[in-house]
Amino acid sequence: MQIQVNGQKIISRIHELGQLGIDEQGRRTRLAASDTEKQGRDLVVSWMKEAGLKVVVDYIGNIFGIWETEENKNEKTVMTGSHIDTVINAGRYDGCLGVISGIEVIQAMKEAGVKTKHPLVVGAFTNEEGVRYSPDMMGSLVYAGGLSTKDALASVGTDGTILGEELKRIGYAGTVEPGFLKPEAFVELHVEQGPIMDIEGISIGAVENLQGIHWQRVTIEGMANHAGTTPTKLRADAGLAAARINVFARELVEKSGGMATVGTMEFKPNAVNVIPSKAVFTVDLRNPNKEKLDSDEKKLADYIKQVASEDHVHITTQQMTCFDPVDFDETICQLIEKVAENHGFSVKRMTSGAGQDAQMIARICPTAMIFVPSVHGISHNPDEFTKDEDICHGAAVLLDVLAELAAK
Amino acid sequence: MQIQVNGQKIISRIHELGQLGIDEQGRRTRLAASDTEKQGRDLVVSWMKEAGLKVVVDYIGNIFGIWETEENKNEKTVMTGSHIDTVINAGRYDGCLGVISGIEVIQAMKEAGVKTKHPLVVGAFTNEEGVRYSPDMMGSLVYAGGLSTKDALASVGTDGTILGEELKRIGYAGTVEPGFLKPEAFVELHVEQGPIMDIEGISIGAVENLQGIHWQRVTIEGMANHAGTTPTKLRADAGLAAARINVFARELVEKSGGMATVGTMEFKPNAVNVIPSKAVFTVDLRNPNKEKLDSDEKKLADYIKQVASEDHVHITTQQMTCFDPVDFDETICQLIEKVAENHGFSVKRMTSGAGQDAQMIARICPTAMIFVPSVHGISHNPDEFTKDEDICHGAAVLLDVLAELAAK
Repeated sequence: MQIQVNGQKIISRIHELGQLGIDEQGRRTRLAASDTEKQGRDLVVSWMKEAGLKVVVDYIGNIFGIWETEENKNEKTVMTGSHIDTVINAGRYDGCLGVISGIEVIQAMKEAGVKTKHPLVVGAFTNEEGVRYSPDMMGSLVYAGGLSTKDALASVGTDGTILGEELKRIGYAGTVEPGFLKPEAFVELHVEQGPIMDIEGISIGAVENLQGIHWQRVTIEGMANHAGTTPTKLRADAGLAAARINVFARELVEKSGGMATVGTMEFKPNAVNVIPSKAVFTVDLRNPNKEKLDSDEKKLADYIKQVASEDHVHITTQQMTCFDPVDFDETICQLIEKVAENHGFSVKRMTSGAGQDAQMIARICPTAMIFVPSVHGISHNPDEFTKDEDICHGAAVLLDVLAELAAK
Repeated sequence: MQIQVNGQKIISRIHELGQLGIDEQGRRTRLAASDTEKQGRDLVVSWMKEAGLKVVVDYIGNIFGIWETEENKNEKTVMTGSHIDTVINAGRYDGCLGVISGIEVIQAMKEAGVKTKHPLVVGAFTNEEGVRYSPDMMGSLVYAGGLSTKDALASVGTDGTILGEELKRIGYAGTVEPGFLKPEAFVELHVEQGPIMDIEGISIGAVENLQGIHWQRVTIEGMANHAGTTPTKLRADAGLAAARINVFARELVEKSGGMATVGTMEFKPNAVNVIPSKAVFTVDLRNPNKEKLDSDEKKLADYIKQVASEDHVHITTQQMTCFDPVDFDETICQLIEKVAENHGFSVKRMTSGAGQDAQMIARICPTAMIFVPSVHGISHNPDEFTKDEDICHGAAVLLDVLAELAAK
């Protein structure tokens, strides 16, 4: 039996949700637990109810739409979901695709009269983006037991607010302990946010792993001196030392297959004819393989020591974020591939370059992700776009994968 | 006949002049043609008059103290001098040493009853530092005919003022055409502003040349993309391209014997997990040899093209400042060496890394400079310091050099 997903409904709902949180400058911004995100939550809850799902909110504000029957209510759940909070000046698809598709897919199965061994659940996790409160992927991390509810609720936002109070204020301080539903499996549908599938013309990504992420802030202290009177060998040029580390980091990941980005850079005193006395910058290092990521980190740390010695500068590093790589479940990946091939869709094994709720839920159950292409790889940007047909393909694959996982 | 210079008078005057222009934050700042620089000018004029010199101010505000006699008044002059304007939060010595020593040296010769073939003149040139009005070394440049008086007086300051009006306001819009005195020779006494003489224990620098200076602003435009989802080979990382150019510039001057400084750097959007879409920075390139400076510039320009191609970025460069290297007069350099050796002072041929009034006057007459050490090479900083004995040595050498040049 082939159950039909209403792709048009998913697409129109992505646009309807995308209208919420447009600010005076025309920027789409729904930061976690804000007034605009509350509007999005209310809309999602209304759709869950319309689909006949039982809506439960947990202490950290994660929203779950649950379809269970008398026959399967004591079984572990098969779960899908994502998030609806956004970055500042966001696109429409990131996160929202997975939540909206999850609701529609479960509704379609329910209305088709499918009997499943496991209840089906769609979740909208709190504060995936981490723009207002830190860390990102907070709701799924708390759900998976990686952070205490108490600590998460006490998070102070960039605007000085406390997450727990904000959740109460918007009416989403829920009533159950995070982790209350024990998932049998978790599958998240998401846009790639990168260019590979668009360039290669691939419809479906079977996401087999997720890069580890290591962020550090590097502070180099040299000596401000006259750019015309200080011989090269007597210089302690903090800016040059920073440049050498940037170039080295790129060379490093070209060998290891990871990614390295020096995204921020500040020089002091930042004057044309004064040797920089200080350079502060960040290094974002990623690799899907933990051994390679650790090895790159070690090599970078060694090189930083070498530069400190060679360039007569003092260098300190401060770890900001550190997530290990995640390997997703091979069985679910193979299922995604099989389902995609059954539909005649091109499919490719993918690595998630970005952090995802799925990486947290992977701590407590077999998990994988389905990617659909992002045109030109653009994300976190109003120009983020995924073609309607790719959305329909992704939702169709999600349905079949969830159906098979729930049937067993 | 050994004429004695009153070194203590020079030192106490450096400190007296150094007290003028201390602002509310305790920073010594006498920008060209400002109220505080007027105080300095008035003090210098009073010292010139006390020394029995005729004081003349030209249209661009250069102040000259002239010692001429009935016998030599039709001869070309032998000139010394420097400047008394400062950077923001300056030291006491830069410029002031040369003006104050020049007054004292001429007074000492006059009072010793020396007869010279040529009149002796000490000049205090307007706006050497170029902080308030551009270009720097303006007064000496105008004096040497390299910039018209009219254009210079029309310069608009960083504070929106016009130099000509400010000179009138402070009473230093003078009455004669710049260049009115034709110098036979020019010798400037100055602090090194670099560390070489201090490190090597040298008393006197015979400055044989001055580095050419080339400043450019480089703008790199790449593409902002997600640091986790954009494969290395698809990146257009403007920050990495900037880093490569910085590293290359250092390697370049290590071969050519010049100096390269990337003093300023700005990234956009300057976010940890976003590949920089834009990097704007400056390159300060110097070399005392014009062929080498031109060759370094060419190689840097070629490398910039290579980086643009390899890193998929668009790079534009904008020339900011460009001064050719200056070779000073070999005969005067040898005279400085001979005089220093006669006194038993250690002496070394030096290159001026900084721009100087002498480089402008070198356009119109044989010119050289005498350096005295800067402790730790510190300059443009309140900690700028030259030992009292080095000041006395420098003034003694200046006196003998001027006396010999004026005698001929």
